[in-house]
Amino acid sequence: MNEKVAIKTYLSQCAELIEATLKQSLPSSWDIPEQLRKAMLYSLEAGGKRLRPALVLSAAEAVQGNAAVINAAMPVACAVEFIHTYSLVHDDLPAMDNDDYRRGKLTNHKVFGEAMAILAGDALLTHAFHLIPQAARQGGIGAEIALAIVEDLAKLAGAPGMVGGQVADMLGEQGITSILELEYIHLHKTSDLIAFSVTAGGRIGGATEKQLDLLARYGRNIGLAFQIQDDILDLIGDEKKLGKKTNSDLEQNKVTYPFLIGIEESKAQVERLTQEAKSSILEADFKEPGRLLEIADYLVQRDH
Amino acid sequence: MNEKVAIKTYLSQCAELIEATLKQSLPSSWDIPEQLRKAMLYSLEAGGKRLRPALVLSAAEAVQGNAAVINAAMPVACAVEFIHTYSLVHDDLPAMDNDDYRRGKLTNHKVFGEAMAILAGDALLTHAFHLIPQAARQGGIGAEIALAIVEDLAKLAGAPGMVGGQVADMLGEQGITSILELEYIHLHKTSDLIAFSVTAGGRIGGATEKQLDLLARYGRNIGLAFQIQDDILDLIGDEKKLGKKTNSDLEQNKVTYPFLIGIEESKAQVERLTQEAKSSILEADFKEPGRLLEIADYLVQRDH
Repeated sequence: MNEKVAIKTYLSQCAELIEATLKQSLPSSWDIPEQLRKAMLYSLEAGGKRLRPALVLSAAEAVQGNAAVINAAMPVACAVEFIHTYSLVHDDLPAMDNDDYRRGKLTNHKVFGEAMAILAGDALLTHAFHLIPQAARQGGIGAEIALAIVEDLAKLAGAPGMVGGQVADMLGEQGITSILELEYIHLHKTSDLIAFSVTAGGRIGGATEKQLDLLARYGRNIGLAFQIQDDILDLIGDEKKLGKKTNSDLEQNKVTYPFLIGIEESKAQVERLTQEAKSSILEADFKEPGRLLEIADYLVQRDH
Repeated sequence: MNEKVAIKTYLSQCAELIEATLKQSLPSSWDIPEQLRKAMLYSLEAGGKRLRPALVLSAAEAVQGNAAVINAAMPVACAVEFIHTYSLVHDDLPAMDNDDYRRGKLTNHKVFGEAMAILAGDALLTHAFHLIPQAARQGGIGAEIALAIVEDLAKLAGAPGMVGGQVADMLGEQGITSILELEYIHLHKTSDLIAFSVTAGGRIGGATEKQLDLLARYGRNIGLAFQIQDDILDLIGDEKKLGKKTNSDLEQNKVTYPFLIGIEESKAQVERLTQEAKSSILEADFKEPGRLLEIADYLVQRDH
């Protein structure tokens, strides 16, 4: 990737690369019922920041110090976006958040029906695990590294990770009283997949165990900062830039960081988490730490 | 496993071994919301024939000719049961088949609620991919074989496999007119996961590419025979032995093999598929083909 461009441009370039690859990541030679393929692609192509796959690419590049590693990392970057997309499709279901719109588009089940949305989510989740072995088959990474990435993903996206966070969120609705409970939810619902993204990139780039630990810490911290920033933007953000209504958390009586500790303390918390995240990167002594440091800052400064 | 016992006893012994391992396959050290753990275990422990995991073990033993391979194959056998279980939990949902009972027990969503059943299914599916790398970490199989098994499972359980079959079934309800359409549904909805089970066992046992192809053919054929036999039992079976009402397909206007081609021709078809399956095994020249041959016969002769 171009070293000179600003972080926002860098992330857009990553997103473009990822979107071009996502489009092709369901083999056209596969005999898949047409409606299922459409339902899967509908949500895959529904946009978003593509932050998680960009973190896979950025972490791989940071560790290896060479942009060529991006090709090897691409199937894994796509895998994490498949997981993220399935989680949104299932979250939006009537039995869950019952949302009609996401990013200004009708949600999957509003277009394809509830049964198809459940199955399209299942298929997206399953296909993530088809993409990771591809990275090994293309020769970019060894089988042992690919297998470690499969194991990480299954843990961090599964019961002790993202799904567990989603369950805690659902069970805790309106009953959350402590910042610790809220932190548990965000750490698992949001941070685990972000931590997976950077450690997977790190593994592809050849990180040591210590570097992987530091990447995981960076991931957890920016994930939490990202989530608190989301809560803040819901209160004081610009509806046009956000592409969604503000104050929705208040209307739904959702317990958030600003609700529990106030806006100023929430902002300070975002700042602290960002600094900690950056310290981990500096401590890890990567060849090209620049983008990971910039991303940590960008997530705090963003307005959407 | 004991060489002398009859196939029914052998399969019961496999099921016992598998159930003992399934109980422990969600690490107790993992911090998982209690309700989620309960919901996952509820359906995992709800019984069933455990046919798919038994096929993983039997195929591994057939190829390697030594019962010791069963230990190496066990995590993969459990993985396939996690996948099968998730598919039943999601199939039973109100938006899908809307079933209140399965194997005489309340379905997952009737006990834990719809949202939890969706998430428990997601977590079961994801955890299957955590179990396969374990087989490699325990040293029973190499990373490359484990990765090939991950890739197979993601394909055969995903959009071009089991989920695709489920979608075709859902879209085709009452509109199916040809045996080819029905075959497509069963091949993907049922046979793909059975074909996965035997090829995964074969990979663990050290099968050649040709042997893997023959195992896949065996799996597809017994899977299809199994499904047609299910349709036949629904018409002429004994409710007590089946543990469910007969004639449910007729009541639901479900298009089945007996509906399209009659009971006698359906029975003949089961017989033909069973013979073809057995021919594949004989052609493959395995060290211990006995159990796989017996299983093919057993599936036709069973009354539940």
